[in-house]
This record gives sequence, structure tokens and C-alpha cells, in this order.
Amino acid sequence: MLLSANGKLMNPLDDLFEFLRFPSVSADSRFNSDVDACAAWLTTRLQKIGLEARKYPTPGHPVVVARNEWQSGRKTVLIYGHYDVQPPDPLDLWDSPPFEPVVKADKVFARGATDNKGQILAHILGIESTLKERGDLPVNLIVLVEGEEEIGSPNLEAFLKEHRSALQADVAAVSDTGMVAPGIPTFTYGLRGILCMEVRLRGPAADLHSGIFGGSVTNPATVLSRIVAKLHDDSGRVAIPGFYDRVVSLEGWERDLWSKLPFTEASWLATTGSPRLSGEHGYTFLERVWARPTAEVNGFGSGYQGEGPKTIVPSKARAKLSFRLVPNQDPSELRPVIAEFLKQQCPDSVELEIVYQQEGRPYLVKPDSAFGKAAQKALSKTFTQPVAFIREGGSVPITQSFKDVFGIDTLFLGLALPDCKVHSPNENFAVENFYGGIRLNRHLLDQIAET
Amino acid sequence: MLLSANGKLMNPLDDLFEFLRFPSVSADSRFNSDVDACAAWLTTRLQKIGLEARKYPTPGHPVVVARNEWQSGRKTVLIYGHYDVQPPDPLDLWDSPPFEPVVKADKVFARGATDNKGQILAHILGIESTLKERGDLPVNLIVLVEGEEEIGSPNLEAFLKEHRSALQADVAAVSDTGMVAPGIPTFTYGLRGILCMEVRLRGPAADLHSGIFGGSVTNPATVLSRIVAKLHDDSGRVAIPGFYDRVVSLEGWERDLWSKLPFTEASWLATTGSPRLSGEHGYTFLERVWARPTAEVNGFGSGYQGEGPKTIVPSKARAKLSFRLVPNQDPSELRPVIAEFLKQQCPDSVELEIVYQQEGRPYLVKPDSAFGKAAQKALSKTFTQPVAFIREGGSVPITQSFKDVFGIDTLFLGLALPDCKVHSPNENFAVENFYGGIRLNRHLLDQIAET
Repeated sequence: MLLSANGKLMNPLDDLFEFLRFPSVSADSRFNSDVDACAAWLTTRLQKIGLEARKYPTPGHPVVVARNEWQSGRKTVLIYGHYDVQPPDPLDLWDSPPFEPVVKADKVFARGATDNKGQILAHILGIESTLKERGDLPVNLIVLVEGEEEIGSPNLEAFLKEHRSALQADVAAVSDTGMVAPGIPTFTYGLRGILCMEVRLRGPAADLHSGIFGGSVTNPATVLSRIVAKLHDDSGRVAIPGFYDRVVSLEGWERDLWSKLPFTEASWLATTGSPRLSGEHGYTFLERVWARPTAEVNGFGSGYQGEGPKTIVPSKARAKLSFRLVPNQDPSELRPVIAEFLKQQCPDSVELEIVYQQEGRPYLVKPDSAFGKAAQKALSKTFTQPVAFIREGGSVPITQSFKDVFGIDTLFLGLALPDCKVHSPNENFAVENFYGGIRLNRHLLDQIAET
Repeated sequence: MLLSANGKLMNPLDDLFEFLRFPSVSADSRFNSDVDACAAWLTTRLQKIGLEARKYPTPGHPVVVARNEWQSGRKTVLIYGHYDVQPPDPLDLWDSPPFEPVVKADKVFARGATDNKGQILAHILGIESTLKERGDLPVNLIVLVEGEEEIGSPNLEAFLKEHRSALQADVAAVSDTGMVAPGIPTFTYGLRGILCMEVRLRGPAADLHSGIFGGSVTNPATVLSRIVAKLHDDSGRVAIPGFYDRVVSLEGWERDLWSKLPFTEASWLATTGSPRLSGEHGYTFLERVWARPTAEVNGFGSGYQGEGPKTIVPSKARAKLSFRLVPNQDPSELRPVIAEFLKQQCPDSVELEIVYQQEGRPYLVKPDSAFGKAAQKALSKTFTQPVAFIREGGSVPITQSFKDVFGIDTLFLGLALPDCKVHSPNENFAVENFYGGIRLNRHLLDQIAET
């Protein structure tokens, strides 16, 4: 329990619940006003703890920036997070409504609970508790919370450049990654990049009767299937020529370290609920996810999807494709390579359109820098266990922008548990990790101040 | 204009509009009460013209049967049609609402306008006009209008068997096929059969974050794509072993006749709106549609289909497949052949379920029987042009039941024009053909009475 400004006892979970009730879905324009309301709430919350906070418009969703009073001679820390969330679909698989948070079995269930509202709010409440106790922070602090992470942060790099001098920091810190197991502090030194696109095919001008016309025109759903089928070879490798040209091989020390982590095939199977694990031949499941690139269908649709049969040749077919990239693959280099492959697979009896969506470069740092060691100390003090070193399969593309614009590294101090179901129905955040995150922020600022 | 029972002038289009306003979609249970209301309206309409009419319940949607008083020494004609319609999706491609009929450019636009409400109602109004003029019909008449044709008539054969003696006729007549061009009377002597199924794949228990898990589990959308991709070889033939075993080859006289029909690749292209025609090598577009079997994806869906990206590995993927069959392929024989093929393509890292839907055998008759010639005479008298002889790519599976249960052939006297868009948005029925159908019924009953 914390004391609020007016002396009332505040339960940090109340704050989290308020934050989670905003359906701040950045990918779907129907939620635009909710996204904006969420940014406004966050700005007010940051002002209440004593920071100077402001909501900045962008061509997309707003960025919220808060800071303490700058003092020379102090390290400057940029804490980054995002207040936007993934779409909650499929809604029917949620046990409770995605934007009505509930606590069950010591976990908060809601869309965004872990990714990223719970984690960024823990930092904010950590800052609040330090300010309340000491009246000051040990560092110059910038809190930057954006609203477009789930759609690839299309406007953030321009924002960073525009406010380069005001946002210049010595190091960035992000809690948007995972812990290998409950209670095991985890330092993430690498992330995959990402490249998303939508493939749209058009055959007949409208859906046609499959009896009257079937056999004489090309079915775009069949073409789309044939294209997707060619994305991989039989060994599970992506079959696009040139796709692996820049892939950096896994190092021996990484394979060794990872083989000792508390992940088993059985637990991974249980978490995914798949009938069986699979993937690129020659790699363990962790290596496949953390250090190998993928080509994935995130969704597709064509023709009639309602109840019962409908005997048509559909007019259109679409697939959302995403490619997870590893060092040193470059999404802007791969975009035309993949597009060329897709075009080559497409017969001239259908029309192909490719719509590019989010992209971000992969990230890999050496874990033993001064700031890296400070972060690891903060982690081990918070959770009183030795730190695990991992890479992750997810993407936080903005880290590359921090490197490019400010020349700084990003520290990943994850609070997400393996079964937290981010991007899935029943996303949840362990209450213990929420409180852990509040403690972690205090240790982190102290340790960075000491470097 | 016709005179109604109370002496008022009735416009036949008013009747058609009333009939079309019922959204009698048999495939979707949300429309069940509309389907039933449509059957009730039809029953009342048939009673009003002086027939004994009744709505019979079935395990699915009702069957409407009407008849005149039986007189010995007369031929008995069974006129078959259906009052159910295809789902209207995709709604956004309709220029006017599918269940609010309008006349534009001498065509009635509405779901079911051609298939089959316009065509069956023309017969009913033809019967009405004969009864009004002559006080009697030249034949014993049974009108049978079902509500499950668009879902494969699952309950009709049992209904026919149950009422075998009451429904026994000498010949069946159906207007649910096409005319090769406006004004050209067309006799259809063959139809394709059909076999529909839904393929359901399940990978992870729920949608997974494609960063955290992507690469380690099998994506069911990818598997579905690989299965669909294997349905055809590169020459456009269905690649399922055994699929062509019973296919009867096209005869030379058919290829000759069809090559002289007023169909051109250019007009077929324009009707379909496809970028280019395609299909099985070695056949013309008419041969592909009328005499060759197909494997078609009628629709598929998986994962996220909303706006923007959503980086998940989907839990499920589904496809609706339909196979159009030609003589002498048998759907019940092919069902396990196709299922075995699908199972063989499916890795054990996803779960496969196959849900069988409608099926019906293909149909082929010799066109020069006595009833066939009577139908052809009725057609040429109605449209004052020589009759075209065709097969069709669509399916009216119930014709095989008429053969099996009553031992009778079915005469196809089509009123659908090539651009009537059945099963598609903006389905329409030429007003001229509606009135033609009313005349056709009178000639048909007269010609059959003379055989």
C-alpha cells in the first residue's frame, strides 16, 4: 500500500485496473478515442506523482513524456514503455472480458496486463514511491510511453529526432520482455526484428457461383495457399532465396547457457497447447524462437466463413504475414526480396497487392557493459536470485532507434512470465511481478546512479 | 397483368417482390424463422390459385407441396423448385440491399431473384393463369418447393420416400438452370454433382505471440495452405489419387455442339471479371465448367483478419472445400478418398477435423426422350428460337433422387441468364424471363399432356 497525495491509502492495483480499462487498441481505428483517453489518463497520473508530464500529438497516436527537474552531474535514464495494446480478438476465448480486469489466482487478467501496462506502471509507481520517501530521484529521469508499439512505432523515431536534445539520455531501460521462470531475474541481451505485410489477391470481380464458373477461373484462395505453402521448405527453413544471407550464427556459449535454463519441451508444449513442437531442423525450441528467423501467417481470410456451405469461387483472398528477423537481417533490405518472391509465385490470373506494415530491426548487445551490470545488480537485488541471460523472440524495434538517435544501449529487465499469454486471450500479469517491478525501478535508478 | 380472385389487377412482380423479401437463408440458423415464414407465405399463395397446398415439417426446413385434383388417364408432372436462398454475403458488394428487391434496367435485383424464387414463381403464376382461363390443367400436377436446396437437400430424399405414392409422377420439371443467351431457349441434359466439406485445423490451444513462440510450433494456417496447395497439380488437374477414376470422357458431338454456342472467352471473362481464364489443360472454358470436375476453396479463415497487423501464431484454421463432380463420379465413394488425402497431408503437430456437408451425384440424360422432346417444343414455342443443348456446371442433386425414388427423368428448362450473378452480390432476374417462365409453364404442361 502507498500513501496518496491526500494521505489516503492507495492500492497500486486500483491504478493498474484504471489503466487496463482503456481499450487502447492501436491497430484498429475504431478505438482511436480510447487510445487518446488512455494517453490523457497516463499524463495526469504522471503529473500527480510530481513529474512534469505532457501528451504530445503525432501523426498517429500520442506520445506521453514525463521528467523530473534536470540536475547536472547525474546520469540520465530514459524509461520506455507503451500504453497501446494488441486487439483482444478472438473475444470468445477470454474467460473474462479483456477490458474488465480481474484478479484470479494472484494474477491480473486483462488485455495489456503484461504487455505493457502492468510493466510500465510498475516503473511509474516505483518512481512515485522513491519520490515520496526521498523527495528526489538519484538520476535525471525521462519516462517516455508511446501509443503505437503494437503497430511498429511508425511515428516514434521522428518524434525522438524532433526532441533529440530534450530526450538525450545515457541509457534506456525497458520492461517489455520475459523472465525465464517465476522469481528468476532475467536480463535479455537480444531480440528479434520484425517485418509485417498484408498480401491481397483478387481473382473474379465478385464471388462467383462455383458450379457455373468453377474450373474456368483462378481461385485466389488457392493461389494464396500455394504462395504460403512455398514460404517454407520441408526442413522448416524459410524458402525465400536470400532470406538467410545476413543471419549471424548462434555462438557456442549461448547454446550452452540456454540448454541449462529452466525450460523443458514439456513445459513449452503445455504453455503453447500445441499437439507437438516443431520448427527448423537442427535447432532446439529455444534456439528456434530466440535466434532463428521465421515466416508466419498471422491470419488469412477468403470467401465465405459463416455457418454451413456456400458454393462460390471467392473474389478475394488476404493473408497477414510477419517475418521475425535475427541479427543482422535488415527489414528494409528484405522487403523487396520477399515482395519479389511473392510476385514470382503469383500467376497472372489473379492480381497481387502487397501492403507493408510495421517493421523493426533485430537487436543484440554485449551483456557486460557498465549499465548492463547495473541492471543485473538491480535485478538480483529485487528477486534475490542469480540473473539468467537470454535472448528473446519478440521485437522492440524502438531499441534500434535509441541506438541510432541517441547512441545509447537499452537495458531489458523483463517482468513477463512464460504463461502470461501476451497477444493471446486471457493475457495476465502476476501480481507478485507487479510489486517486483515497483521495487526493481528503485534498485535500477540507484544502481545506474552509482555507475 | 393478371386478375386476382377479387377482380383486382395484380402485377406478377408484386408477388415476386413479396417472395424475395423473405431472407430465407437455409445455411444459417439465425434465419430459421424467416425460412419458415417464407414457406408459409408460399403455401398460402399456392392455396389462393386453387391448388391443395400444405407445408410439411422436416428435421430441417419445411417442404411445401401443392396439387390439383387427380384425374386418371392424365400424365402426372412434378414441378420442383426451392424457396431457400444462398447467404447474401459479402453484403458490402451489393448495390442495393439483398432482401429489398428493386427493378433496374429491366432486371429484378435481390438474393434469390433467379435462384430460385423467380423461376419457381413463374411456374406457379403460369399454372394460375391456365387455371383462370380454362378452369383446369391438362395434367395431374404436383408442385414441390423445398427449403434446403442450397444446403444439399439433406431431408428431401427421405421426404420423397415417405410420400412415395402421393408424389409419384411421370416426369419432373425444373427451372433452376441457365439460358445460353437472352432469348435462346436452352435444354440442359447434364449437371455436375457436388461434395462439400469443412476442414478444421487446430494447432496451439490459443493464439500465441508470434515473437515469443513463433518458430517452435506449427502454424495451422500454414498447414492448411500446404494442404490446399496440393489439391491441384501444375496442369490444373485435381491431384487427389483416384479422383478421376470414374470420370466419363466428353463425347465428340458435345464438343462440336458446344464450340458453336454463343459463348466467347471474352464474354466469359467479362462476366467473371477475372484477370484471365484458367483451368485444366486441354479443355475449353465451357468443357472445364460443364464436363470436368473441380476442387474449390469456397472460403477460408484463420487468425487475425481485422485492420492492421497482429503478430500471432493462430490457434485454428478452417477451409470450406467443395468438389464439383461429373458422371460417373460418386460423392459417397469420393468422400473417404478425399479424407484420406487430407489426412496424409496433415502433420501430427496439428489436429485435423473434417466436417462433411452437402453432397449430390452428377446427372446426365439422353436429350431425345418423349418428355425431352415435349420440353424442347415448349421451349421453342415460348422463345420462338431453336433450342440449345448444354450441360451445366451447377448441381441439382435432387434429380438423382427423382430417378432413384420414382424412376423418372428430370427436364431442365432454364431461365437464368449468364450474368444473373446467382450466389453472388447483385443477383438478378430478367423481367422478360420471368414473364417467359409464366408462358413456358403453359406450353410445358400442354406439350407433356400430348405425349
